[in-house]
Amino acid sequence: MANSDQPGGIINDVASVTSIVKAAMSGTRDPRLKEILDALVEHGHAFLQQVRLTDAEFEQGLAFVRAVGQACNERHNEVVLLADVLGFSTLVALLNNADESGRTPGALLGPFYRGGSPEYENGRCIACEGSPGAALFVHARVLDTSGRPVQDATVDVWQASPVGLYENQDASQPEHNLRGRFRTGADGMFTFRSVRPAGYPVPTDGPVGAMLAAQQRHPYRPAHLHFAIFAEGHATLVSQVFADDSEHLDSDVVFGVNRRLVGTFEHHEAGTGPHGDHREAYYTLDFDFILAEGTPTYPTPPIQ
Amino acid sequence: MANSDQPGGIINDVASVTSIVKAAMSGTRDPRLKEILDALVEHGHAFLQQVRLTDAEFEQGLAFVRAVGQACNERHNEVVLLADVLGFSTLVALLNNADESGRTPGALLGPFYRGGSPEYENGRCIACEGSPGAALFVHARVLDTSGRPVQDATVDVWQASPVGLYENQDASQPEHNLRGRFRTGADGMFTFRSVRPAGYPVPTDGPVGAMLAAQQRHPYRPAHLHFAIFAEGHATLVSQVFADDSEHLDSDVVFGVNRRLVGTFEHHEAGTGPHGDHREAYYTLDFDFILAEGTPTYPTPPIQ
Repeated sequence: MANSDQPGGIINDVASVTSIVKAAMSGTRDPRLKEILDALVEHGHAFLQQVRLTDAEFEQGLAFVRAVGQACNERHNEVVLLADVLGFSTLVALLNNADESGRTPGALLGPFYRGGSPEYENGRCIACEGSPGAALFVHARVLDTSGRPVQDATVDVWQASPVGLYENQDASQPEHNLRGRFRTGADGMFTFRSVRPAGYPVPTDGPVGAMLAAQQRHPYRPAHLHFAIFAEGHATLVSQVFADDSEHLDSDVVFGVNRRLVGTFEHHEAGTGPHGDHREAYYTLDFDFILAEGTPTYPTPPIQ
Repeated sequence: MANSDQPGGIINDVASVTSIVKAAMSGTRDPRLKEILDALVEHGHAFLQQVRLTDAEFEQGLAFVRAVGQACNERHNEVVLLADVLGFSTLVALLNNADESGRTPGALLGPFYRGGSPEYENGRCIACEGSPGAALFVHARVLDTSGRPVQDATVDVWQASPVGLYENQDASQPEHNLRGRFRTGADGMFTFRSVRPAGYPVPTDGPVGAMLAAQQRHPYRPAHLHFAIFAEGHATLVSQVFADDSEHLDSDVVFGVNRRLVGTFEHHEAGTGPHGDHREAYYTLDFDFILAEGTPTYPTPPIQ
């Protein structure tokens, strides 16, 4: 029989398939790519051997992958959404953030981050005049892993509105509503006023939405605030803080909730608020962020 | 903390991710879909835990899947090509065809099948007048698993030209060139004359081609003939017969070569050929196809 220069072999039975495919890929130049693709083939073949897809099921699976790829456009990435709702994204994030330093865990940057938010003095309200929703007063500290305050950290904050929409999704909100950039003082504190965010659904009009429906899963994320914290001498922290009383807290569709990222949203009856003015019932959130030592890095997309 | 009706939980560490994702999917209505998606999550998470992708590698992987989906169009399916070059398609086919009956293994229908090929008497030439390439005389038998001839089987034959192009890829070939439909006689035989096909590359202008290049793999399939055999009382057989002296026989880019599908292309010096006429050097192929008992089924796309 004719041979070629490329390693391989003729497949005789199910047992020989994986080793022959790996032999064919053995010339991969980049050793890391080879490691990843070898593992992909091993685990992919193990999956197929376990579930023994019929020809029709296999075709349906391939058609699903095609539809997920084709549902991507400039403003939406259905492949990322699929990875999120299967827990792949959270698993990768946890594997890359597992350490014993005590630092606050990271969370996804998410698609609604914008650079260039307005810089505010501590205590400022990031909700536009007359925003509906219960008031929220946030008092947060940025500390190092020894518990010392981190001064002059830059903190980007962004959140959805009380109806679950970010300002860049919602024509009724002013530019940069519910976003702001703060700086920590000598005590590591940054403070602001806002309105309580609401949870919101991921897009359900694509193939991933159909999968969620077949799984009888709701498409909601629980209410949360986003933070990105940059400080000299410390690794940049991109994270989220979830409301402890939010619906769907224990069933986040993208599995983004980590117990260490759940903040206590304390409810206060109507009365004199922490800033001295009389108001309706309101909430306070006190939260400590702990940064690891390191070199500041920037999330993608880069700060503009 | 707030609960929802949906099973789930808050993720605390890498070890809890897989079980929490499976709990979230536990309401899946279709038990087979649940089995498949549970296994997908288990094997997918095991892959991610083994290779520990960096955030950048994970983004690259998701971008690759997106590009594969977006490279699909009406005439090309890059997702199927990816499944083929990773051995997934062959593995599924083998798992669905593994039996001890002795029947001939199936092989992929492939994208070049057309219904409605001309019906020919046995012995006819399926290559148009003046086709270049060495003559090939095929003498094949269709038998049942007891070795008895199967009479009146309908056999669709199709193949690439000596330069590796099917007629529906190549404007220089007449309609239905190198295709034909034959019927077996009382001895189970069907015979035809043709020209030797050549191997050919899979499309390499998409992301899968870039992956093959990174793996230093050639994109070729070895030379082969396609057959689809339909007979009353027997399971339809869709298969391919590979030339034993073909380049790339042991390194088919889509892993379609099964040892039982390798046919002996016997070379004959110039002289009187099997049909009595004098000619250049030529080849003969004798091959037995063995059908399992069963109900005839039709490949996709259906016979037109």
